Amino acid sequence: MKQKNIPSITINRLSIYYRCLEKIAETEKENGLKIVSSFKIAEITGINSAQIRKDLAYFGEFGKRGVGYSLKNLSKELKNILGLDKKWPIIIVGAGNLGQALINYKGLEKRGFVIEGIFDNSPIKIGEKLRQIIIQDVKEIENFIKKKNIKIAVLTVPATSAQEVADRMVKGGIKAILNFAPIRIILSPEVKIHNVDLSIEFEGLTYYLSL
Amino acid sequence: MKQKNIPSITINRLSIYYRCLEKIAETEKENGLKIVSSFKIAEITGINSAQIRKDLAYFGEFGKRGVGYSLKNLSKELKNILGLDKKWPIIIVGAGNLGQALINYKGLEKRGFVIEGIFDNSPIKIGEKLRQIIIQDVKEIENFIKKKNIKIAVLTVPATSAQEVADRMVKGGIKAILNFAPIRIILSPEVKIHNVDLSIEFEGLTYYLSL
Repeated sequence: MKQKNIPSITINRLSIYYRCLEKIAETEKENGLKIVSSFKIAEITGINSAQIRKDLAYFGEFGKRGVGYSLKNLSKELKNILGLDKKWPIIIVGAGNLGQALINYKGLEKRGFVIEGIFDNSPIKIGEKLRQIIIQDVKEIENFIKKKNIKIAVLTVPATSAQEVADRMVKGGIKAILNFAPIRIILSPEVKIHNVDLSIEFEGLTYYLSL
Repeated sequence: MKQKNIPSITINRLSIYYRCLEKIAETEKENGLKIVSSFKIAEITGINSAQIRKDLAYFGEFGKRGVGYSLKNLSKELKNILGLDKKWPIIIVGAGNLGQALINYKGLEKRGFVIEGIFDNSPIKIGEKLRQIIIQDVKEIENFIKKKNIKIAVLTVPATSAQEVADRMVKGGIKAILNFAPIRIILSPEVKIHNVDLSIEFEGLTYYLSL
């Protein structure tokens, strides 16, 4: 079941719940656990159980009051809601260190993200292969996106060229950008931009060292 | 003010609030905004305002009921609570693509994380320099950590060597590890491990494309 106007923070939490259910399914495989309560999910994720029930209620009635959710069904529903039940062709734009790290990162393909194209502007890199994929000239990006009907792009170019490249990708038909470039890019509102800031990952740690 | 036993999800949210306040301070600079309410923070972060007030209450009384929080004071307090008001020396372990991307990533130093050492096991890399820092043999890691009193390590080695390297780092005195290796490492509970999974960043996007 799909609905528009769900707050993006809810979507982020659905992703957390989905991973939590995966983890429960893995650790409880031998116990044959079939039902999971919002309290159990709350315990693992640290998210308030009322919030969990509210988030899930956006998408219909999954659980039974006082009993819980079917682990298998809820997991399947979340996978479907999050669009993780299909393959997503993506392109990586910028074949620098970060781009290459993502190309070699096996977690992506496992989650259904299949790299269809790699782009760069360096004459030294263009024509080379990374994991069997030829690095193409970024000038070709618009045509490639149109031809292959790509919707998701990963932007790992320097800050100075991020906006220009993003504009070109949107012209080609890109609808969602995962932006690793350390700059805010501005695009029409129907394009979803997710800015990744790796320094956030560090911040959680220092709290514990400051105690 | 510091307190133990705060749920780690609260700490993550404090980090989100801190960034939200930074953003407000930046965009409202010209308006001279001095007071910020939990509703304003809720609007931007998507986190429930009652949850925000509850999270902040763990650390004392920052705001005035019905008025709000002083933007400057709350920001300063959060920075202090999160340990972001000081410099943190860190080491990068694994000088592959991801390690190099992090070494070149300026956001880290801006947030107070200063790379003191880089380690690898490849004879080709050992002795080379990255941003003026010599890549050292991973065999030296324990001594280096002790000598320089490093508490935070970033692990960007392959899955096969992650556990062994982590064990050695903890012997040297590491207290917090940001783990990019695609494997769960097991250490004594007083060492804080934060597993980074870059595929989570992708998942939020597919929801919107599935609509």
